[in-house]
Amino acid sequence: MLDVLEKQEMICSNLSVSPEGHLLFAGVDTLELAEKYGTPLYLMDEQRIRERCRTYLTAAADAFHGKAKILYASKAASFKRIYEIMKEEGMGTDVVSGGEIYTAVKAGFPMQNAFFHSNNKTDADIAYAMDNGVGYFVADNIEELDAVEAEAARRGTVQQVLLRLTPGIDPHTYAAVATGKVDSKFGQAIETGQADGFTRYALSLPHVKLAGFHCHVGSQVFDSDVYLRASDVMLSFIADMRQKYGYVPELLDLGGGYGVRYIAAQPTIDIAANIRSVAAHMERKAAALDMELPTVCFEPGRSIVADAGLTLYTAGTVKRIPGFKTYVSVDGGMTDNARYALYGSPYTLYNAGKMNEPADMICSVVGRCCESGDIIQENVPMPSCTGRGSIIACLTTGAYHYSMASNYNRIPRPPIVMVNDGDTYLAVKRETFADVASLDV
Amino acid sequence: MLDVLEKQEMICSNLSVSPEGHLLFAGVDTLELAEKYGTPLYLMDEQRIRERCRTYLTAAADAFHGKAKILYASKAASFKRIYEIMKEEGMGTDVVSGGEIYTAVKAGFPMQNAFFHSNNKTDADIAYAMDNGVGYFVADNIEELDAVEAEAARRGTVQQVLLRLTPGIDPHTYAAVATGKVDSKFGQAIETGQADGFTRYALSLPHVKLAGFHCHVGSQVFDSDVYLRASDVMLSFIADMRQKYGYVPELLDLGGGYGVRYIAAQPTIDIAANIRSVAAHMERKAAALDMELPTVCFEPGRSIVADAGLTLYTAGTVKRIPGFKTYVSVDGGMTDNARYALYGSPYTLYNAGKMNEPADMICSVVGRCCESGDIIQENVPMPSCTGRGSIIACLTTGAYHYSMASNYNRIPRPPIVMVNDGDTYLAVKRETFADVASLDV
Repeated sequence: MLDVLEKQEMICSNLSVSPEGHLLFAGVDTLELAEKYGTPLYLMDEQRIRERCRTYLTAAADAFHGKAKILYASKAASFKRIYEIMKEEGMGTDVVSGGEIYTAVKAGFPMQNAFFHSNNKTDADIAYAMDNGVGYFVADNIEELDAVEAEAARRGTVQQVLLRLTPGIDPHTYAAVATGKVDSKFGQAIETGQADGFTRYALSLPHVKLAGFHCHVGSQVFDSDVYLRASDVMLSFIADMRQKYGYVPELLDLGGGYGVRYIAAQPTIDIAANIRSVAAHMERKAAALDMELPTVCFEPGRSIVADAGLTLYTAGTVKRIPGFKTYVSVDGGMTDNARYALYGSPYTLYNAGKMNEPADMICSVVGRCCESGDIIQENVPMPSCTGRGSIIACLTTGAYHYSMASNYNRIPRPPIVMVNDGDTYLAVKRETFADVASLDV
Repeated sequence: MLDVLEKQEMICSNLSVSPEGHLLFAGVDTLELAEKYGTPLYLMDEQRIRERCRTYLTAAADAFHGKAKILYASKAASFKRIYEIMKEEGMGTDVVSGGEIYTAVKAGFPMQNAFFHSNNKTDADIAYAMDNGVGYFVADNIEELDAVEAEAARRGTVQQVLLRLTPGIDPHTYAAVATGKVDSKFGQAIETGQADGFTRYALSLPHVKLAGFHCHVGSQVFDSDVYLRASDVMLSFIADMRQKYGYVPELLDLGGGYGVRYIAAQPTIDIAANIRSVAAHMERKAAALDMELPTVCFEPGRSIVADAGLTLYTAGTVKRIPGFKTYVSVDGGMTDNARYALYGSPYTLYNAGKMNEPADMICSVVGRCCESGDIIQENVPMPSCTGRGSIIACLTTGAYHYSMASNYNRIPRPPIVMVNDGDTYLAVKRETFADVASLDV
């Protein structure tokens, strides 16, 4: 288990309850926000996002003596305002598509600090990223390296590239988010010798400058051993490349994956303590290999934004089926929260206006889509006074909610309202029916 | 098993192969379409859609002696052009949200032939549907009935309503799409007595006219017994309501759910023969209960549009991991096809330009999203000459693909191009980066 913080009464410190029993998010009454902006509604806590960035930046700068970069994995939540915040905090960013690059550029993000990921970059993506001065490409495979080389040659430039490698670490998380195993659609395996050939090939290309290596072991990781083992494998590989090709990388990117607390049974990871542990471990390993540590990069996404988010819904019906179960339906669902339908992910839910009432009813909270799998969570304790019109809060929805949202059933996507020191502002507007149908001919 | 058609060489009759080994869809060369419109690309075969509508309409009119309605379940694929086609074919439609109503209205669809479903209609939805003259509401629960009554009273009108009931039939399909069981977020169970109370309550409301009953047992059903058992339960319930309240419904809506052939191992359902079987069975049951059959409604969605659709991708890399497996990555994925990630759904895939080559390589076809679960299909036979630039076709993608598509990773959604008698036209435009970011403040 990773180093953890002492448990708080609520699952994140930005949650509290008013004397009249209303859920407060970043100190603001969620019922007032539901009234002001309507539901379903995504809320994000700007100060929490900034605090998480600073925790990473400070801890890494300290532990790695200034030789560290923190890149926000923007696939977790990608919209213009978030890149502005990342720019202001001095974060780098990890982008995975032309659409994320477009959005970061619109926000004025300094693109030399952007790392372009993805297991399959199209020729158009590669040209677009170079047009916009993306600092680093994280190349996944030989064909992509060839495409980057060809495009850079055409422009008469040299593109900085990292190589995505799979260290053969299985983080024992959900298979859909475990990415560091040898059998993966991502990267080139060290174990099979393919990473070696990939490196040798990259070093031979005149319009590619090999800046270093990247790996990413998975998501929602709570086991500290995973990062220590991954860094061991990567440092040994680097020593091997120095030995074979005389190559010394400038960067070693360890990806992201620190777990986030969705339910009370999960711990709160102490990010700073864990970065210190990783750094100390890597320094020992580097010393044993007689090498200087490269600049180490981390790519947190979920752990920057997840608990800075919360979704508000309005309940439509409470359906009690004698001998079976009770269903509480809300005005959102798998369209704004795909994670239960995809992975059966756990969430904490509350009746946001009845926080002081006993949660004496066990129910399934379900969405409004015409699909039985449209469930937000099963076995949720709720007060039995919950009914049509109750405001229901689903916690920890800042990561992979807005970014994965769909218009299934032609349901418009909710807006994102930022809460900041008691004020609120719109970061993403509510989609309208006209928006949803805007591309129909 | 339902009545089935003789198997064809390819899984749908709108597929064929040109002498040079190109996949033809509705007689048109898919490589030419990929070249003309770019990839990823949704194609839809207009004649196939119309043919499927006519099969349902003719068979049902015949088997039920004119007392039948066919409603297109538009959540399967909702965009303006599809409602125009449904209008031209004389189909009704099933809508599940304000967004679907908006789109149908834009298409000039006669809304008196629309049935408004969903387990959770908001007050705003209800008012919007009445504003637009939606013919029938399919009420899911008491709170919703109250909301419909209140809104109709406010307007001084009477709203036609069906009641959604659960007949207690388990179709043994994937749990996420099984909707007719007692333990369901949808409707009111007959078994628990709740359907009876629901009916009695609806009959008491002055601004609600009870037009009949609705049930829907599930999706992708291949077992004919399911519809026979469901109709038995519903007709017995109707006899019971006549007995208790002297109520005789005008409509009995049996929902949708006929299975579609995604892979060669699945049969092709003979829709006409099955409708005839259901009609004969229902007539016997009605005679036994000494009642006249109400007008019977069917709500096909998937079986109207699924095999009228096909997705084209461009391959990015073929990754062979010695001792593990081979991955072919394409320029789309779970953003345009969520069904494998959600349900592990089977699909048939081809290298569309190499149909005459032996499919001598077994591979996983994966998407471009930064997520290990972004898979389109595993264990796909492909010719080993497949490589960057190959056009890959995924068949049977007309239902629940465009409608479930997301912008995860800020990937723009593909356009829908209709193929019609050798011509093609755009029905939904390709989304741009600017579209994806258009609501960002």
